[in-house]
Amino acid sequence: MLLASYLQDTWITPSAPGATAVDVYDAVTGETVCRVSSQGLDLAGAFDHARETGGPALRALTFHQRADLLDALAAAVRARREELYALSIRAGATLGDARYDVDGGIRVLRDYATRARAELPDAPHLVEGPAERLARGDDFLGVHLVTPSPGLMLQVNAFNFPVWAPLEKLAQALLAGMPSVVKPATPTAYLTEHLVRIIADAGVLPPGAVQLVVGSVRPALDLLGEQDVVSFTGSAATAATLRTHPRLVARSVRFNAEADSVNAIVVAPDVTPGSPLFEAFVREVVAEMTVKAGQKCTAIRRVLVPREHERAALDAISSGLAGVTVGHPAAEGVGMGPVVSLAQRDDVRRAVRTITASGRFVYGDPEKARVVDVDPERGAFLDPLLISADPDASAPHEVEPFGPAATVLAYRDTAHAVDLLARGRGSLAASLVGDDLAWTTGVVRRTAPWHGRLHLLDSVTMTQTTGHGSPLPALRHGGPGRAGGGSEMAGIRGVLDLMQRTALQASPRVLDSL
Amino acid sequence: MLLASYLQDTWITPSAPGATAVDVYDAVTGETVCRVSSQGLDLAGAFDHARETGGPALRALTFHQRADLLDALAAAVRARREELYALSIRAGATLGDARYDVDGGIRVLRDYATRARAELPDAPHLVEGPAERLARGDDFLGVHLVTPSPGLMLQVNAFNFPVWAPLEKLAQALLAGMPSVVKPATPTAYLTEHLVRIIADAGVLPPGAVQLVVGSVRPALDLLGEQDVVSFTGSAATAATLRTHPRLVARSVRFNAEADSVNAIVVAPDVTPGSPLFEAFVREVVAEMTVKAGQKCTAIRRVLVPREHERAALDAISSGLAGVTVGHPAAEGVGMGPVVSLAQRDDVRRAVRTITASGRFVYGDPEKARVVDVDPERGAFLDPLLISADPDASAPHEVEPFGPAATVLAYRDTAHAVDLLARGRGSLAASLVGDDLAWTTGVVRRTAPWHGRLHLLDSVTMTQTTGHGSPLPALRHGGPGRAGGGSEMAGIRGVLDLMQRTALQASPRVLDSL
Repeated sequence: MLLASYLQDTWITPSAPGATAVDVYDAVTGETVCRVSSQGLDLAGAFDHARETGGPALRALTFHQRADLLDALAAAVRARREELYALSIRAGATLGDARYDVDGGIRVLRDYATRARAELPDAPHLVEGPAERLARGDDFLGVHLVTPSPGLMLQVNAFNFPVWAPLEKLAQALLAGMPSVVKPATPTAYLTEHLVRIIADAGVLPPGAVQLVVGSVRPALDLLGEQDVVSFTGSAATAATLRTHPRLVARSVRFNAEADSVNAIVVAPDVTPGSPLFEAFVREVVAEMTVKAGQKCTAIRRVLVPREHERAALDAISSGLAGVTVGHPAAEGVGMGPVVSLAQRDDVRRAVRTITASGRFVYGDPEKARVVDVDPERGAFLDPLLISADPDASAPHEVEPFGPAATVLAYRDTAHAVDLLARGRGSLAASLVGDDLAWTTGVVRRTAPWHGRLHLLDSVTMTQTTGHGSPLPALRHGGPGRAGGGSEMAGIRGVLDLMQRTALQASPRVLDSL
Repeated sequence: MLLASYLQDTWITPSAPGATAVDVYDAVTGETVCRVSSQGLDLAGAFDHARETGGPALRALTFHQRADLLDALAAAVRARREELYALSIRAGATLGDARYDVDGGIRVLRDYATRARAELPDAPHLVEGPAERLARGDDFLGVHLVTPSPGLMLQVNAFNFPVWAPLEKLAQALLAGMPSVVKPATPTAYLTEHLVRIIADAGVLPPGAVQLVVGSVRPALDLLGEQDVVSFTGSAATAATLRTHPRLVARSVRFNAEADSVNAIVVAPDVTPGSPLFEAFVREVVAEMTVKAGQKCTAIRRVLVPREHERAALDAISSGLAGVTVGHPAAEGVGMGPVVSLAQRDDVRRAVRTITASGRFVYGDPEKARVVDVDPERGAFLDPLLISADPDASAPHEVEPFGPAATVLAYRDTAHAVDLLARGRGSLAASLVGDDLAWTTGVVRRTAPWHGRLHLLDSVTMTQTTGHGSPLPALRHGGPGRAGGGSEMAGIRGVLDLMQRTALQASPRVLDSL
């Protein structure tokens, strides 16, 4: 079954995909779910439709009216979310994983709708003031005018959040008055396709506001222009290829990248093994390793512990992992499903082997998973893999097993821990665990420039935290260096970043009329 | 005379520049001013010095203490500005041009110092609040923490503002707690060198806070990392080469580009020839064409006038240009000096010839300038060149003569004018001239996304305007597309953009202690 694309408000299946079609397999059973190709699709027509139909319709609305679209979209997806949960099983997602993806996406839409009504005017654009006097008199004033760009957002998404990612990006693009063309990653393209079906069926968005290109969108890169934005989530290697594409460079096409990174958690020396905070730390690591089978760009890959507590940490995490049953994601009691594909499993195996060149497996066997209710040979199953490695080796800081794996690294003192953190060369999120205020603030100050987000776990936050791995609409998502140097969400900032901020020098009467 | 570089707080001249040395000529006389080479300079040592000495010293200061550095710097440059004025003559600058460059730079420093004291805390970093509740309770809060990046700013500057550009970038970098390595453009490197001498002699900055690399900085690009910023001003072609440099891409080095663009001014149909507003428009065009011999990235290149007023505009601008005496920049009564070099003059000649393929010269002869007090053959002199061209041709919108040249284009109606504006594919600044509020706001709404700055000239602002071409610290400088897609200044935003904004999830007691 060839997956359809949604172009110019119509579902279209390539008529002669030929050799370009790619098979997509069920993560659990290895059966073919669908085939994917963009061969012969009229991408130029789709881009024109976005720019000529979707864009003008969205730009004509006020921020508040666009917020209404987000609410309608959230309601439409919520009404049919069970379909998405069911389909997510094929990607290896437990019900918890599916909710993380689907309900998470709905929450972002709602959050942004509320935020836009509270923080943006009921107008199509924003005047950022207060007006500043630019000359001696009062007649020549400056403000910034933030207007919708008459272009489109091309979403290039990763496989791991087939519902959340498109919805999160749509929330900001719609509010910015910008139509979207969504290109899902092949391994879970059928989930994004179903999401777009739900959106299209609901008929809540203006024509041309959302389109879907299943398969390669590469030929369309030459169609991008000065007013467009590419919002990319995926590997650093693909980000580099896209970022240096001659057309994107020649037209200064805005490119926002959120790449996976080698995220860390650091336990302060004051956290005693066995204490409630230590247990919270262990739960955090186990959750990060096993939720979505560790396939989160924010997931913890490096666990930095004081040398004196290394043994205790390894034991406690191992014991936590032993409580997670791996198997059919729909089976009762299963806490972790397979990774998305056999190819992904091979990638993880390769990565952990590189890391264990200077270390050893403490929990799990990368070659054979202990599973329930499934044939472990047909699905992409892996044990959770806990590694202990030399903290001063390179691989643990550079190689990211994008699956249920993490490496414990023992640090000598706080300066060593701070150095090790920076060896990730920039990451999306790091957690610091401890109640010692001086230690925490000291490490925050020294390490903040390397991280897009710092999650501080202490005896106060541990009962309320939303977790190390959860990006939140209020906060910036994206990190420096290895993490791609991009920025998403961050509240309304994420909307305005998609728009053009123009300095405006004018008389008071002109400013009053805008 | 080989120009020295200022590395590791020491003046160094390459000992064996050999074939790499480039001659720099006097714009007026054609004499050799100096030679330039970075052959054999220890750029790696300079970068280390910035990161290990300059960075820590600046980061240890609060924003207010860094503001004091800006004031001290401004005072030091002001005390010796006459030296810079005198030296600027060799680059072809009249006293007015030199003041634009030198006093403009001093003003940016002072403005930023005042701004930092008013808008930033007396602390090394900024907590951007208010804190937002991230969970049901009150114990898990989110803010953004903006901290100095432990890297350096590499300034790659254009020839046209050898004093203003380094000072403008320094203002923001110093406030951001970031050391700078300044690479001036070769044709005016001796002016930036003298500026850095003034700074070094004054001893007001911490060691390592500013260094100067005269000559090529290319070999040093491979030394850049995740925490560094390249702040580039220059051509789109060089921007593209730097932006796609493998090291910059691999490390997500922040790259901010401000490229020249084909800026426009549009006269509304309601502006009657001969009216005071029309005269103000003419003065604006004449100033933009002749100040700094038109070598401003923001200068007006396209003059859009209603068809019925084309003749009147051509006559009035020509008559204004006839009042500008071209000649030795130090001579009495001279309003415009030469462009920076014979090579630059050749570039301008080539560009205007391309544009006149679909038009004609209305004022000035590109091949022989009418000058006073100089030998027109030895200096890089040009007449101001006013062109009339077919508005629907490509060249006037795409080709930028970076010198004293502008093209008048007659538009049919407002929709035509809006289309023509966008054909510049993104620019730094555009002016709209008119008193008709509906026309102005309508054009602003449709054209704002194509411009970094819109300067609205009407009967109210015309007596107070700082001019089309002047970027101001309060306002964003940088534009989309062809203009490079970057952003400088914009008040404190320009400082924070150089820093790392990290989302922080923490308990109230931790936030209170930051």
